[in-house]
Amino acid sequence: MKAIILAAGKATRMKGKPKPILKVGGTEIIRRTVNLLKNYVDEFIFVVHMKEVEDFVKKLDVKKKVIRNEYPEKGNGYSFLLALDHVDGEFILTMADHVYSQEFVERAVKLRGLVVDRNPKYVDVNEATKVKVDGEKLVDCGKNLASFDGVDTGFFVLRKNDISLTNLPSEELSLCDVMKSSRIPVSYLDGLFWMDVDTEEELKAANRLIVKESVKKTGDGFVSRYFNRKISTWISSKLVNRIEPMTATIFSFFIGILSALTALFSPLIGGIVYQISSILDGVDGEIARASMKQSAFGGYIDSILDRIVDFLFIFAIAVVSEEFLWGMLAAFTTTMVSYSTEKYKAEFKRSPFDKIRLLNKVPGKRDERIFAAMIFCLLGFLKELLIFLTLLSIFRVSATIYLVKRSESP
Amino acid sequence: MKAIILAAGKATRMKGKPKPILKVGGTEIIRRTVNLLKNYVDEFIFVVHMKEVEDFVKKLDVKKKVIRNEYPEKGNGYSFLLALDHVDGEFILTMADHVYSQEFVERAVKLRGLVVDRNPKYVDVNEATKVKVDGEKLVDCGKNLASFDGVDTGFFVLRKNDISLTNLPSEELSLCDVMKSSRIPVSYLDGLFWMDVDTEEELKAANRLIVKESVKKTGDGFVSRYFNRKISTWISSKLVNRIEPMTATIFSFFIGILSALTALFSPLIGGIVYQISSILDGVDGEIARASMKQSAFGGYIDSILDRIVDFLFIFAIAVVSEEFLWGMLAAFTTTMVSYSTEKYKAEFKRSPFDKIRLLNKVPGKRDERIFAAMIFCLLGFLKELLIFLTLLSIFRVSATIYLVKRSESP
Repeated sequence: MKAIILAAGKATRMKGKPKPILKVGGTEIIRRTVNLLKNYVDEFIFVVHMKEVEDFVKKLDVKKKVIRNEYPEKGNGYSFLLALDHVDGEFILTMADHVYSQEFVERAVKLRGLVVDRNPKYVDVNEATKVKVDGEKLVDCGKNLASFDGVDTGFFVLRKNDISLTNLPSEELSLCDVMKSSRIPVSYLDGLFWMDVDTEEELKAANRLIVKESVKKTGDGFVSRYFNRKISTWISSKLVNRIEPMTATIFSFFIGILSALTALFSPLIGGIVYQISSILDGVDGEIARASMKQSAFGGYIDSILDRIVDFLFIFAIAVVSEEFLWGMLAAFTTTMVSYSTEKYKAEFKRSPFDKIRLLNKVPGKRDERIFAAMIFCLLGFLKELLIFLTLLSIFRVSATIYLVKRSESP
Repeated sequence: MKAIILAAGKATRMKGKPKPILKVGGTEIIRRTVNLLKNYVDEFIFVVHMKEVEDFVKKLDVKKKVIRNEYPEKGNGYSFLLALDHVDGEFILTMADHVYSQEFVERAVKLRGLVVDRNPKYVDVNEATKVKVDGEKLVDCGKNLASFDGVDTGFFVLRKNDISLTNLPSEELSLCDVMKSSRIPVSYLDGLFWMDVDTEEELKAANRLIVKESVKKTGDGFVSRYFNRKISTWISSKLVNRIEPMTATIFSFFIGILSALTALFSPLIGGIVYQISSILDGVDGEIARASMKQSAFGGYIDSILDRIVDFLFIFAIAVVSEEFLWGMLAAFTTTMVSYSTEKYKAEFKRSPFDKIRLLNKVPGKRDERIFAAMIFCLLGFLKELLIFLTLLSIFRVSATIYLVKRSESP
């Protein structure tokens, strides 16, 4: 399947750049769309007007044709007709100033015709293009429809023979004109994250929302869900267009090391720094997922550094409190919490949290242990902290083994 | 594809049972063949004579037809002709008293005609059926050929129209008679493990060899390869037909616990018991693989119990030597050796030992650490043991991270 991406908008600029190459969630809008589509698409047809956009798409590492529209004032319908000669059979059509979540694209590519949202959560309906449908066909569209069935998401899955070129206006030609005169089919996909980006405010909102989307399905504990992530996503949305995930990984590792060093002199302050490092630990993953730069190596090294930080903090507490036996037990058992999860993934080739839902409810995840550590440190209960960590970890590892065993029994 | 399995041999018994249902490597010969073939085969056609064999194959959990040959004295060629009516197009033909390795079957199913071994390593060539080939066709076969090109493995991949039913003798009919009069095609597969089992000695040899095959590709360290496995495979070959893998897992875990308890009173004896537990630790995996009873849960629990044994032994040494700081470091870093490997499998969805061959050469695997621990204990160097384990483990984890990073860089 081919994909047409319309990027020949008139020269509306924000922050000195054309919209398609503005970064949202760490990645230029048009690159994000290409990345989301490339598993479904053999060749991209870009319709461009501005030189900066043309240069940018030419560098994208996908099979492509780049078509210049010299007359952007003729409207995006005209851009679309320029591209139409280069496709056959089924193709995707979308806009370079629209931002879509992965889930939206995964589901939209399986639909037929214009994808319409009857419950748009992230766009200003007053400003959006509305759609009127009759018998699963598009009959009218525009900003000012008196009655409408949903909002145009800018995402289409069309066949070449859906498009009729008769009765088109000869002057300015909007995509809406082409589509309604063709009475193209319509499908519904409601309430998922997508936005068109027209203003600086929308750009900021899209950026923040993409970072928030990145937190879904990460298997967070209680403290992370209701506290750490509120702060880390705020930090990530500020940093996502500026730094690489690995920079955040290394920074939070050093704060973790610092927490252990501090704890040697003041467990109270050390505990607070440890909790700060726990918040920052979310940032690298959020930036990586939001900007679609996840890597197996990134996940690998982040996880090993977390184990080292946890060990060093417990080591420091054991030294300060001179509770070495409990220190050994706490250091080993907390490491085994992660080990029992990672070994599951290694052996069963899937996440235990997907298969064994109850495991999400068992306490003792890292964010919870660290928050508890801070509380114990604030209260000066160091030996009690080590005993608590040991017992909590033994409980969690035992529960994990029990639940794994139960999920395997016929 | 269908598979014909000839199990209607005359009533030759060993240990009071017909050959097809004798256990080799923990599994009945005919069940092993079915297990090895079932990924390639839709339906099995069993030709049986004895009631015990008939009852056994009827209980196998595969789609099947069971055909009784009331006249086994007519020969295995006659058994084959009884089955031939139930196949069309391409089919597999094999014997219920032959034992094949997984590698043999994986490669043989892709071949054409009779699979012939020009370099049979595990069978007595004097007793074997030899094969004479002319232009990739079978022209003669039998035990007493003056000149021959290889040995009949008893494994065929045939098409129905390969078989010609003219010019067959009317009395006793061997498979050899059918095949040579049909001039069936021949393929070569040399030097892999397969055996036909005719005597008690061959049964024992097959059992031992299957256990040895199970050790391949297990990512063993130096001590395991050249010492532990010699003993553990001997033990496994004695136990494989008698116990379940989990029994061996639990037994070696208790020996491991015992080594830690013993070390509290005598590190010297504790070290020896620890090394014994390391040898026994191989048995569960050998039995599981040999008998085709591997399970993800088995691998999961074995690995977690290993970590617990290693921790408890180090804990005991730390208590006896009162070297708690080194004890904490040794306990954590040795756990991280496994963690860095398992996390790789979890994140990259493959074994690091396949992708990063050099990792096999880096010292510090469990078998090596335990052997070293025994030596240090024998010499009474307890603090030195903890320092050694720490440094060796830090070296191995660092090398692992470095090699993983290098393997990911473009």
